[in-house]
Amino acid sequence: MFRDKIRVLDCTIRDGGLINNHDFDHRFVREVYKAVAASGVDYIELGYKNSKKLFSTKEFGHWKFCDDEDIKKVTDGIDSNIKISTMVDIGRVDMDDVKPAAESPVDMMRVASYVKDIDKAIFMTNHFHQKGYETTINVMAISRDMGPELTEALHQVEEESNIIALYIVDSFGALYQEPVEKLVKEAKDILKTKEVGFHGHNHQQLAFGNTIEAIMHGANFLDGTVYGIGRAAGNCPLELLLGFLKNPKLDIRPVLDLISKELVPLRSKIEWGYIIPYAIAGMLNEHPKAAMALRKTDKKENYREFYESLLNVE
Amino acid sequence: MFRDKIRVLDCTIRDGGLINNHDFDHRFVREVYKAVAASGVDYIELGYKNSKKLFSTKEFGHWKFCDDEDIKKVTDGIDSNIKISTMVDIGRVDMDDVKPAAESPVDMMRVASYVKDIDKAIFMTNHFHQKGYETTINVMAISRDMGPELTEALHQVEEESNIIALYIVDSFGALYQEPVEKLVKEAKDILKTKEVGFHGHNHQQLAFGNTIEAIMHGANFLDGTVYGIGRAAGNCPLELLLGFLKNPKLDIRPVLDLISKELVPLRSKIEWGYIIPYAIAGMLNEHPKAAMALRKTDKKENYREFYESLLNVE
Repeated sequence: MFRDKIRVLDCTIRDGGLINNHDFDHRFVREVYKAVAASGVDYIELGYKNSKKLFSTKEFGHWKFCDDEDIKKVTDGIDSNIKISTMVDIGRVDMDDVKPAAESPVDMMRVASYVKDIDKAIFMTNHFHQKGYETTINVMAISRDMGPELTEALHQVEEESNIIALYIVDSFGALYQEPVEKLVKEAKDILKTKEVGFHGHNHQQLAFGNTIEAIMHGANFLDGTVYGIGRAAGNCPLELLLGFLKNPKLDIRPVLDLISKELVPLRSKIEWGYIIPYAIAGMLNEHPKAAMALRKTDKKENYREFYESLLNVE
Repeated sequence: MFRDKIRVLDCTIRDGGLINNHDFDHRFVREVYKAVAASGVDYIELGYKNSKKLFSTKEFGHWKFCDDEDIKKVTDGIDSNIKISTMVDIGRVDMDDVKPAAESPVDMMRVASYVKDIDKAIFMTNHFHQKGYETTINVMAISRDMGPELTEALHQVEEESNIIALYIVDSFGALYQEPVEKLVKEAKDILKTKEVGFHGHNHQQLAFGNTIEAIMHGANFLDGTVYGIGRAAGNCPLELLLGFLKNPKLDIRPVLDLISKELVPLRSKIEWGYIIPYAIAGMLNEHPKAAMALRKTDKKENYREFYESLLNVE
């Protein structure tokens, strides 16, 4: 699979940060940056740009805020053309805090949005665009919102925004290939002047397969994380995506080294991957938060009871 | 997804046996049988029917041979309509040892075959068919043999055999969705009087996604194993398949209980699942045996070196 327009984004630190309060030390993030840059991946997302008025720096690590100094600490002296991305949540960023792109190490701002918040997302991406950033809108929890509101939102984005890509985000790991095909085709059809992206979650072991499905139907912006690290079951493993894509600029070997040296040891300390309560949440199209809470209790392996509790919610 | 013709086969004990020399104790196998039967799955495969002249009962457990008495020990007293399958490898079974189906607890004999051995597989399945068994041919390592020999083999099977289904077996976990689509369509096209099956391996986390892909293109015989247990990275997790299929006769809950009580503890003793050397073997379309050997050495986490060693083989 080689298509020149494909762009790969690694969000190891950003999505992985959701399982450790964004508290990766600078050494680890620098190792990730170095390996991902060496692999030829196009973008690396280092965290969220959240307001320190809303979140405490005592409670959360550096990558909840992504200060320029922290970014420079993990990137300075490493020769690379990789672009740096940060994510913002609607209502959690102090927009005036965001410097013009020319004064920042950040190249891209990705706004995570539900379908219902699309007007805010468009407003924010237009603001960041004016400051010189590349921008995307990442439509979260799309498995719960695939109807006419989504169609309308896509038309608005096409007409009113300057984003370079709109991402379909399967936050609940609930999508099978057919809905991925339907969503990518609809987005491609409406977004004549933007690219379509896909960000999978691996609750049902479908993050990589669905990413391939999205590629087949024309998605060109693809997210992955090293060893699949990420909230709950995690994301599309970057190494599998690199194995699939045949672009000669990509090299899997630095990522394999990084997994050996950093991710395997980390996995013995924090939990992600194929874990039944996340699979159950995915198959029932539910947010993984109940499963994440369960994993902190002594009922963490009571799968049937958890399954029945989710059924009763419906 | 509800299609009346779909048949689900659990091969937890058979494929799982490849990682412990088929040495599950009777209590464990009985628990698996009980849960899988209660879930409404159509078939359960309990092991191989190998000749004791070729393999030692000291070296291998019961499920390498599947004697009737062992099968009866794990099934007697459990009320169920589930059918029992055993697998045979070409050249490893003493065919005269196999009693007529009417005198055996076994309902189905599945013959595992490479494309090159298809004549032998047809001969064997015809023999078992005459003895009253349902039969299938499971075409192994198909990712290495997708050309004209396969086409010819499919025609032979259609014309010369009495099997109920021919399985596409992705032994190396190397197939992406597009080749699965191509293979299922070709098999459906040629096998007018048989069903098509799919057996995935999970080296690249695609066993479940590829099974869905096979279903979409008309495969009706589907293999899974509880918690994905199986050689190397394992198989399509049965629980995910049950979550996807909407046939009201299927019930995921007994399988969830089984995972809680039996498979999670077992996984801490024997290894299967998403492990990088298996992923590397899959993406390079190689047999997992080199990766399995690596996992027994102190270089088990040296992924880059392993990757480069496989590249040099080519």
